[in-house]
Amino acid sequence: MQFTEEMFARHMRPINGSAIREIFKLLAKPGMISFAGGNPSNTALEPEVVSGLAREALEKYGTTLLQYGATDGFNPFRESAAEFLRGSMVNCEAEDILPTQGGTQAFDVLLKALIDPGDAVLCESPTFLGAIQAMREYNAKLIPMPTDDQGVIVEAAEELIKAHHPKLMYVIPTFQNPTGITLSLPRRKALAALASKYGVVIAEDDPYRDLRYSGEPLPTIQSFDEEGWVVYMSSFSKYVAPGLRVGAAAIKNPVLRRKMVIGKQSADTHSPLLNQAIVDAYIRKGLMPGHLERICGDYRQQLNCMLDQMKLLPEGTVHTVPQGGLFIWAALPEGMDAMEVFNRAVAHNVAFVPGTHFYTEGGHLNTLRLNFSMSDIPTIREGMARLAEVIRG
Amino acid sequence: MQFTEEMFARHMRPINGSAIREIFKLLAKPGMISFAGGNPSNTALEPEVVSGLAREALEKYGTTLLQYGATDGFNPFRESAAEFLRGSMVNCEAEDILPTQGGTQAFDVLLKALIDPGDAVLCESPTFLGAIQAMREYNAKLIPMPTDDQGVIVEAAEELIKAHHPKLMYVIPTFQNPTGITLSLPRRKALAALASKYGVVIAEDDPYRDLRYSGEPLPTIQSFDEEGWVVYMSSFSKYVAPGLRVGAAAIKNPVLRRKMVIGKQSADTHSPLLNQAIVDAYIRKGLMPGHLERICGDYRQQLNCMLDQMKLLPEGTVHTVPQGGLFIWAALPEGMDAMEVFNRAVAHNVAFVPGTHFYTEGGHLNTLRLNFSMSDIPTIREGMARLAEVIRG
Repeated sequence: MQFTEEMFARHMRPINGSAIREIFKLLAKPGMISFAGGNPSNTALEPEVVSGLAREALEKYGTTLLQYGATDGFNPFRESAAEFLRGSMVNCEAEDILPTQGGTQAFDVLLKALIDPGDAVLCESPTFLGAIQAMREYNAKLIPMPTDDQGVIVEAAEELIKAHHPKLMYVIPTFQNPTGITLSLPRRKALAALASKYGVVIAEDDPYRDLRYSGEPLPTIQSFDEEGWVVYMSSFSKYVAPGLRVGAAAIKNPVLRRKMVIGKQSADTHSPLLNQAIVDAYIRKGLMPGHLERICGDYRQQLNCMLDQMKLLPEGTVHTVPQGGLFIWAALPEGMDAMEVFNRAVAHNVAFVPGTHFYTEGGHLNTLRLNFSMSDIPTIREGMARLAEVIRG
Repeated sequence: MQFTEEMFARHMRPINGSAIREIFKLLAKPGMISFAGGNPSNTALEPEVVSGLAREALEKYGTTLLQYGATDGFNPFRESAAEFLRGSMVNCEAEDILPTQGGTQAFDVLLKALIDPGDAVLCESPTFLGAIQAMREYNAKLIPMPTDDQGVIVEAAEELIKAHHPKLMYVIPTFQNPTGITLSLPRRKALAALASKYGVVIAEDDPYRDLRYSGEPLPTIQSFDEEGWVVYMSSFSKYVAPGLRVGAAAIKNPVLRRKMVIGKQSADTHSPLLNQAIVDAYIRKGLMPGHLERICGDYRQQLNCMLDQMKLLPEGTVHTVPQGGLFIWAALPEGMDAMEVFNRAVAHNVAFVPGTHFYTEGGHLNTLRLNFSMSDIPTIREGMARLAEVIRG
């Protein structure tokens, strides 16, 4: 017998992997300046600190960290994660916390718990392309919600809820990926109210929240939710280290949390204990505030530099002015094609992500996403100059 | 709105979690002797070694281990895992390896890649209850294959393939969970031939293979597969440490591997790099052979002790005599109810897993699974004496 495309599950047949991850393969070229990724800066990573915390954790907990653990999580980590999230205006206790493999897994097990093939899921337009792929793998019907410079347009979202009866709404409220836009306070309240009014679970994906360089933190959507409709998904990838794969979801609804735990049980039994213990120690030792202050100081300068360099792009280019996060979003003048620019840019050793990949329906060919966290100031200047030159043609 | 059971995906509604994991909660009681788990012995775990390897890896690779990594895996680990698996008679190169979160995740992403709701999957009867739960979460139609003391009965399997046209067959060929039985050499060849003849993917779940206490190693089913039908799933949970959650699947079919990589991308982005680097170093430094020899020496004595103590169980009890692994499987005289025995046993501080949980269709109430790896010799003697007393009533 021959292995054929029909062997695959129907929903998996058309999915050929994240465009970003394909783009990454082009970036190994020496001399490449990449504004494409969503990585923290290498200077934000602390191998010696992690090594010390790993040693201390293994001394403290011994074989406990090497044995099987509970799917619900390593309790010291659940406690410290809950404390950290309360500091981010999330209403939670240790028992609400499910440790996950980055924020990614929280959404995966939430989809597994809720979605039957064909179920509608609302998401921002544009949105994180990894989330688009995850929703497609569960054969969800993706319904894009219109957005403006304050995030999701609530009235439009309500009409879409009435029309499509979604089980789930996926929102990145703070320094959104890809746009960098932050959902306004009134809209946060309004989305929480919609969830309760119509019985829609909100996946509040908030991994950039503490990378704020100006303005005041806003309460989470979850903080306005009194009935357990919001699953708050955080991650330590952007704050400590993505390679450790440590995230934490806060799930107040015990029935939903239980189903997510069951889904995770079959997915990976439990999250690795050493990794949970490292992040637990990072929080408990009080390393987070100083670390965030340091990296935010650097990222603020990088953002400001890139914002300043946006003037090099063609007249008629518009872009967001984020207060934090990792990304600036730009629209070149109508009629320009960022995919075509991308191919020439890579040949000239500068890269970004064409914006079309962030739309469930494609199109929007003139848009692009620029990352500033991975490049220092001189590199941002050089890369933006190269990009401007490529666009001029 | 109220959150109701109907909010959940249809396949998740009836699933309430692994019976074993519920049983685990009863085992925290002080004085409990547990033959219920599938854990390695605490004496097999080496926190100091892991701590040293973590430090060396972070010194060697620095920020690379803390950044985002490739979904395909950390290449040094893929190389050493391939070398390790070749030593286990698996036909593979580094490029065939997908690192996974224990063996659990390999099966999860394989199911995600292949299974549409209602697709048939063949599995041994009885089989690992975690796998039963995973298959149910993908809404697979579970078809149990009859087994005897040589493993799956091939003629029966072929009839079931003709009747149900399964996409997938799940087999634990070596020291099977729960029975401890090893699939014979001719049957290994025959199953590989069936896969090719009928176009069925075989998930060869082989996490106990190197825990062999007598007899000679047999070639893997995968080694007889010339067309890429077999996905070989290994894990370092039983060899190094389950808490690290490091497994490795060997997938020769590049199209299938790619779809599994895509499924993993959405599930967790990638496996944590530090954990892959620790196991990589464990293999590269040549620590595995001596470690396996040491733990197999201990486990052999524990197995032999428990086999000897089986004589305490009621006349008419039959049990397997495994050559390795972690489990002995027993059937009490017909009419006895291991669930009822279990409840009394826990009250008398001794636990096991009632065998009914390992059958897709339930029943087989007189069967039970006994683990010997977690208890030392005096504990096995004491626990078996208690169990025998409880059964006598």
